[in-house]
Amino acid sequence: MQGYTVPLSPRGIANLAPAPPWHYAGTVVGVEFFTTPAAAAATLPEGLTPDPDSAGRGVAMFVDWQYSSTGQEYLDPARAQYREFLVSLDARHHDTPVAWCPYIYVDNDSAMARGWVQGFPKKFGAVHQTRAYSVGGPGTPVLGAGGQFAATASAAGQRIAEARITLAQPVPDPAALMNRPLVNLRHFPRLAAGQHDKPAVHELVMAVLDDVAVSDAWAGIADLAFFPAHGEELADLAVQRTGRGFHFDLAYTVTDLKTLADHSS
Amino acid sequence: MQGYTVPLSPRGIANLAPAPPWHYAGTVVGVEFFTTPAAAAATLPEGLTPDPDSAGRGVAMFVDWQYSSTGQEYLDPARAQYREFLVSLDARHHDTPVAWCPYIYVDNDSAMARGWVQGFPKKFGAVHQTRAYSVGGPGTPVLGAGGQFAATASAAGQRIAEARITLAQPVPDPAALMNRPLVNLRHFPRLAAGQHDKPAVHELVMAVLDDVAVSDAWAGIADLAFFPAHGEELADLAVQRTGRGFHFDLAYTVTDLKTLADHSS
Amino acid sequence: MQGYTVPLSPRGIANLAPAPPWHYAGTVVGVEFFTTPAAAAATLPEGLTPDPDSAGRGVAMFVDWQYSSTGQEYLDPARAQYREFLVSLDARHHDTPVAWCPYIYVDNDSAMARGWVQGFPKKFGAVHQTRAYSVGGPGTPVLGAGGQFAATASAAGQRIAEARITLAQPVPDPAALMNRPLVNLRHFPRLAAGQHDKPAVHELVMAVLDDVAVSDAWAGIADLAFFPAHGEELADLAVQRTGRGFHFDLAYTVTDLKTLADHSS
Amino acid sequence: MQGYTVPLSPRGIANLAPAPPWHYAGTVVGVEFFTTPAAAAATLPEGLTPDPDSAGRGVAMFVDWQYSSTGQEYLDPARAQYREFLVSLDARHHDTPVAWCPYIYVDNDSAMARGWVQGFPKKFGAVHQTRAYSVGGPGTPVLGAGGQFAATASAAGQRIAEARITLAQPVPDPAALMNRPLVNLRHFPRLAAGQHDKPAVHELVMAVLDDVAVSDAWAGIADLAFFPAHGEELADLAVQRTGRGFHFDLAYTVTDLKTLADHSS
Repeated sequence: MQGYTVPLSPRGIANLAPAPPWHYAGTVVGVEFFTTPAAAAATLPEGLTPDPDSAGRGVAMFVDWQYSSTGQEYLDPARAQYREFLVSLDARHHDTPVAWCPYIYVDNDSAMARGWVQGFPKKFGAVHQTRAYSVGGPGTPVLGAGGQFAATASAAGQRIAEARITLAQPVPDPAALMNRPLVNLRHFPRLAAGQHDKPAVHELVMAVLDDVAVSDAWAGIADLAFFPAHGEELADLAVQRTGRGFHFDLAYTVTDLKTLADHSS
Repeated sequence: MQGYTVPLSPRGIANLAPAPPWHYAGTVVGVEFFTTPAAAAATLPEGLTPDPDSAGRGVAMFVDWQYSSTGQEYLDPARAQYREFLVSLDARHHDTPVAWCPYIYVDNDSAMARGWVQGFPKKFGAVHQTRAYSVGGPGTPVLGAGGQFAATASAAGQRIAEARITLAQPVPDPAALMNRPLVNLRHFPRLAAGQHDKPAVHELVMAVLDDVAVSDAWAGIADLAFFPAHGEELADLAVQRTGRGFHFDLAYTVTDLKTLADHSS
Repeated sequence: MQGYTVPLSPRGIANLAPAPPWHYAGTVVGVEFFTTPAAAAATLPEGLTPDPDSAGRGVAMFVDWQYSSTGQEYLDPARAQYREFLVSLDARHHDTPVAWCPYIYVDNDSAMARGWVQGFPKKFGAVHQTRAYSVGGPGTPVLGAGGQFAATASAAGQRIAEARITLAQPVPDPAALMNRPLVNLRHFPRLAAGQHDKPAVHELVMAVLDDVAVSDAWAGIADLAFFPAHGEELADLAVQRTGRGFHFDLAYTVTDLKTLADHSS
Repeated sequence: MQGYTVPLSPRGIANLAPAPPWHYAGTVVGVEFFTTPAAAAATLPEGLTPDPDSAGRGVAMFVDWQYSSTGQEYLDPARAQYREFLVSLDARHHDTPVAWCPYIYVDNDSAMARGWVQGFPKKFGAVHQTRAYSVGGPGTPVLGAGGQFAATASAAGQRIAEARITLAQPVPDPAALMNRPLVNLRHFPRLAAGQHDKPAVHELVMAVLDDVAVSDAWAGIADLAFFPAHGEELADLAVQRTGRGFHFDLAYTVTDLKTLADHSS
């Protein structure tokens, strides 16, 4: 049997995701926000603590992604493209400032499978963001000063997040947009009776992103709201105020993952 | 009651589409193709004849669209964005070379409603095209020489079209890409017994596109295939050979329509 | 060119809907509700007036439908099945008590096309209802006393309606569930400049339903809520109180339509 | 942090699936088929061998499911309902006849998460089956002799399976329909560099189904076809001939799983 994720199969082409490298290119609408320190802290797994320098700070990101491995997978766009909404919250792993991802939504099963392997707790969602077209005209914002972009996310037919940004100036130091390493929790439960609370996999992990590139980065003002929904806890991270909004293109490659603590049982 | 399309409503904001202007910006993957003159001719409505200079020639276009009216509708991207696949076939209206659209698919109800009003015979479909990101890297083709883009369309869970292009050179005269006016058939049937074959609306119409703009136009080689599917006749336009492939951004505004012949009963 | 709705085509099988008869079978979760008389009256088209005996009364219906014409279309379930949410409001056409449908949502393009032809102002939505399975067990409610059923509807990723019913007793007179004829507004606009407010079709019509059958009809208590959403006016019909809830199977055939008033221009 | 699957969260309601029990009720369209023994054998994981008594025999099942845990989850039908297509192949675990599931598709993220935990290699798909309504009429087949039902499955906009059955007689021994225990492969890879071929979880497991109930079971003749598709290997199990077709309602509860062999590394 061949393959990396399920389903393993005779020829190894049916699996949801092949073994890395996983290459990504995407367009990001991002909003810096602040929730209560208590709400943010309540989401942290064992091993992470609030960041005393930025308690309650988070980033909401809406991304129009395209994925490829070594086979020009982007030439199968029905599978290679997906839309994603995630929130990250500032935290610390020992003394290291990190970003913790409590909630993330995608509209594609291959992205969900890769995400689970990375420790991203992906659920399905419907995600959209305004797009800038180079051709101009009243059907598109400009990717520049004054350009307005909105983004929305829904889960199970319920709107859970809405954002809007108005661009003001280029970002002088785009690399700073990705300066906190992402920490996730790889978690895969057992189903055997008596072991439902003894997960087969329960590892605190740090993402390893290679060849990170950012282009066309603009910043400006932003609005953001999270909405209550059945089966969701995102709105518990009530937005107290927003910081800056961002718009940029992002690329990176994933081939590795660093385990910070392994609590698998 | 207010509104332009259904549903008419007290405040006029529930309608699928407001009255024009309708502004569009989109990214196009297009492929010139040739089917048999007989297959192309069989799709023509009364009032159009085959173009003797290009019998059997057509264009398949996959478009990632964004729409807006006067209210910055692009800030509601869950409604304003949609994906479209259409074929057009060369024809003549009297002596005028035109493009006739027999089949078109979109993934958005507002686009379907606007399309019907324009005479586009829109059905629902799932449409995807490879996207170029400025950030570069192995997750994206370059928008330039050597860049490869694929596009696919499906209806009711059945793949109906696949295209692939490899860009070679910029298009020297981008305006020529849109040089044939589109002719559609506005058609809306009656349901009263005995009148099922006496449509309330049956008009041959010519699209009026204002402020047409094309940018970033590249051409190259192309592959294209149409596949048989239950409830579809697209594959009857069997692709005999392909011409050039195109990639460009397109914008225009719709506020008007020209009636060529009105056979409404 | 053959076909009934668009697209007309050489073989007449690509059209979204063939000419009638259109046969339907469905399972209905229904809730009787009362909004303010003013809110209900505001939705009425010219030709209808509030029903003085039941001002503000309406019915919300969620239906899991299956459709067929003369070709056993139910053997193509990916196209023949769809889910629908609609509200109707009591009204009068002259002295005749009727039900007026201001808003309706489906998840299928063929259903949308047939609906437009009938005058139903259909938009796309995501609709779900609890289902009763004969096999029993904790995964299903009983179709009988004490059985609980919920239903939800969403538009563009926004929840617009939620209902819940608890069955108490069989409906003694099931035919009474469908005793008000449905009145719709067939409406199809013009696009030519200067004629955007002169619709090509604008007819007040009364549905003609043949061979209406109701089975397994139960009634009970009900909850219902409508929620505000961008681009929707449903929540303007704020639910003041609910009446009875219903669960039944419904079948009928459509081959005709009665025009009450033709304001087409 | 509370919850069973990801995402773990402060209140434990955001997770894709709570800890068992997981109760199911569903309607099944099933087709017995025979592929080549070699094609079937090629899909078997280590620990399973072909069944010498029925080499190449399989069952294709299309199921309209409803799920609930202990909280009447069926009252959130947008999450609780889903459609599934799976194939199972006869095999042996030592001397025990079992059914091995190489491929399975669902349209719901909670079902995908539960499936992975059970070892079902679920991907996303669009699945539909003809439904029988008690109300009768030309819009529905009868659930009885002569009733015809079709089912289809698609992945990434590509049709991968179509089935059709015509019912002939009740099944005398419905329990026999579920007489082979299902064997799955729980598999969850590592992402750390150098460990991509050392899965964190790789266990051969046998499903434990409690309170299995079957009702309304009918059998008849059947057709079945699998179609090639990008990124799928289902069609390698080419259908040589079909056996009987089935239609029945099915219920069971999942709270446990039996590990047959643990190759986790």
